[in-house]
Amino acid sequence: MAVYTDVSDEELDAFVAEYEIGDVISYKGIAEGVENSNYMLRTNGGDGTYFLTLYEKRVAPEDLPYFLGLMEYLAGRGISCPLPVHGRDGQALRTLSSRPAAIVTFLDGMSVRRPRPQHCAMLGEGLARLHLAGTEFPMHRANALSVRHWRPLYMRCAKRADDFADGLGAELDAELQQLENRWPENLPAGVIHADAFPDNVFFLRDRLSGFIDFYFACNDALAYDIAICLNAWCFEGDGAFNVTKARLMLAGYQAVRPLTSAELGALPLLARGSALRFLLTRLHDWLFPVDGALVRPKDPLEYLHKLRFHRDISGPGAYGIDE
Amino acid sequence: MAVYTDVSDEELDAFVAEYEIGDVISYKGIAEGVENSNYMLRTNGGDGTYFLTLYEKRVAPEDLPYFLGLMEYLAGRGISCPLPVHGRDGQALRTLSSRPAAIVTFLDGMSVRRPRPQHCAMLGEGLARLHLAGTEFPMHRANALSVRHWRPLYMRCAKRADDFADGLGAELDAELQQLENRWPENLPAGVIHADAFPDNVFFLRDRLSGFIDFYFACNDALAYDIAICLNAWCFEGDGAFNVTKARLMLAGYQAVRPLTSAELGALPLLARGSALRFLLTRLHDWLFPVDGALVRPKDPLEYLHKLRFHRDISGPGAYGIDE
Repeated sequence: MAVYTDVSDEELDAFVAEYEIGDVISYKGIAEGVENSNYMLRTNGGDGTYFLTLYEKRVAPEDLPYFLGLMEYLAGRGISCPLPVHGRDGQALRTLSSRPAAIVTFLDGMSVRRPRPQHCAMLGEGLARLHLAGTEFPMHRANALSVRHWRPLYMRCAKRADDFADGLGAELDAELQQLENRWPENLPAGVIHADAFPDNVFFLRDRLSGFIDFYFACNDALAYDIAICLNAWCFEGDGAFNVTKARLMLAGYQAVRPLTSAELGALPLLARGSALRFLLTRLHDWLFPVDGALVRPKDPLEYLHKLRFHRDISGPGAYGIDE
Repeated sequence: MAVYTDVSDEELDAFVAEYEIGDVISYKGIAEGVENSNYMLRTNGGDGTYFLTLYEKRVAPEDLPYFLGLMEYLAGRGISCPLPVHGRDGQALRTLSSRPAAIVTFLDGMSVRRPRPQHCAMLGEGLARLHLAGTEFPMHRANALSVRHWRPLYMRCAKRADDFADGLGAELDAELQQLENRWPENLPAGVIHADAFPDNVFFLRDRLSGFIDFYFACNDALAYDIAICLNAWCFEGDGAFNVTKARLMLAGYQAVRPLTSAELGALPLLARGSALRFLLTRLHDWLFPVDGALVRPKDPLEYLHKLRFHRDISGPGAYGIDE
């Protein structure tokens, strides 16, 4: 949960006056979001309810036009996601309390705390639609947390990794070498969400109602986005992989966008890579907590178990798909 | 900021189904409130926006009927405050995620981060109206943090008080003795808010738009509520007492409910007591942090300076009133 920046009412009034959404009648800091400060904003004009985000230091300001542009692009192509609101001067990205800030429309819906198989099916379908909708998005942003960025992260954590689990350093080193050597190139690529965890996918009346939090979105292999979701949606709280959830997720995806055989074959490796990426960033956040962070670091070892699962399977058949 | 209890969507759906406010279409944990877990709730029926509170362990469940009853009572007498929503069975107090919980109406408005003199005038007037409106409230709750509760709090902190400031333990002990000996009895009494800090008073379009957070409300000397506000509203960030703010607050109050000479004469002592009360609870929270608390303890010494101010003045004339 996070409100890192305290916005005064005077600053907020002046900020909102730059939009045609009426006057502020209420704003509340929202206890979610790890990276940024989020407020629910109520006004006496426009939609009446909006979402205000102040981008804190972990978001690179130069990436914001990509993120906001992508949300607007996707929303214009039928993908339900927050729509950036433009000010009277046409700008969606402004400054508030010395931070980049934007107002977006409020998206109804709720994330599911414990996804059921049917949620995974809807997620797969929605993710494929998002991928197709983003095909022609004209901006480009490299994945800043892909395979070539993992070793520098690992190096910062290596000395203290064994404090976490015996032999963790050596295991990560070996895993990194394999992934670096075997990481697939030339898979179908495009815009990926890259953080479509259950927190960031909304459902309403048993339908997927939208995606939020596009602040890791980038251009990368589409199948890598699926690999992230396999890890984030298809393991149970006790660590067990739920093959039913994976099968439904992949079937939902393929009903909209069939995977190539190269993508299918690469899935286990991509899933290992995705597990390593979240393991490393969590390990890093644990070992180097940000001063003033109001969020407890997540357990890195959850992703060590997931990594091992994908390393130990014989192929993508373990995800419930026909090979 | 606080969301101590994570509510699942299934639990929430079942909970909201007990009210006639439609179905949940969104809920967000709110990053405010020290004691309880708060959610902004949006539904497709009724007002559309509500406030859901789960009462955590620092609120005694047996006090909740008083707090909720008081809000309903005051709202029915023209005081703007959240109105508890009754379920289909007539009950406003229910259980959610094993905690007492209630839905109240959403109150528009914003707290002021840096109150200006005019805010203090409006607060004074609003507080007097609240006091008058509560006169006939039939329930009773003793102030659980009044003079006779301070020494036990002090005793728990005494050994480590000097770690905070040299001589703090002895100073608090002496102060306590004086307050215990001289604490005024028989002042006009009634329902007081007892926590009307700037956080808990909303303004909208330069008018006071309501009071929130009645979870310290109790029956006590009305002037003690003013004393709390003198401390909470009339000191500047640098510790200086702003006599203009105090004068306007007291004038605003007296325009609605004139103070008796006994009340005026008691104000400095009540203000010392109020300062000691917040000093002690802050000191206690600092020395004995609650496991899992997501709020940083507030600085106790802020209230030591306030206490000394009130001890050193010659009389209530220091608050800008004619004696």
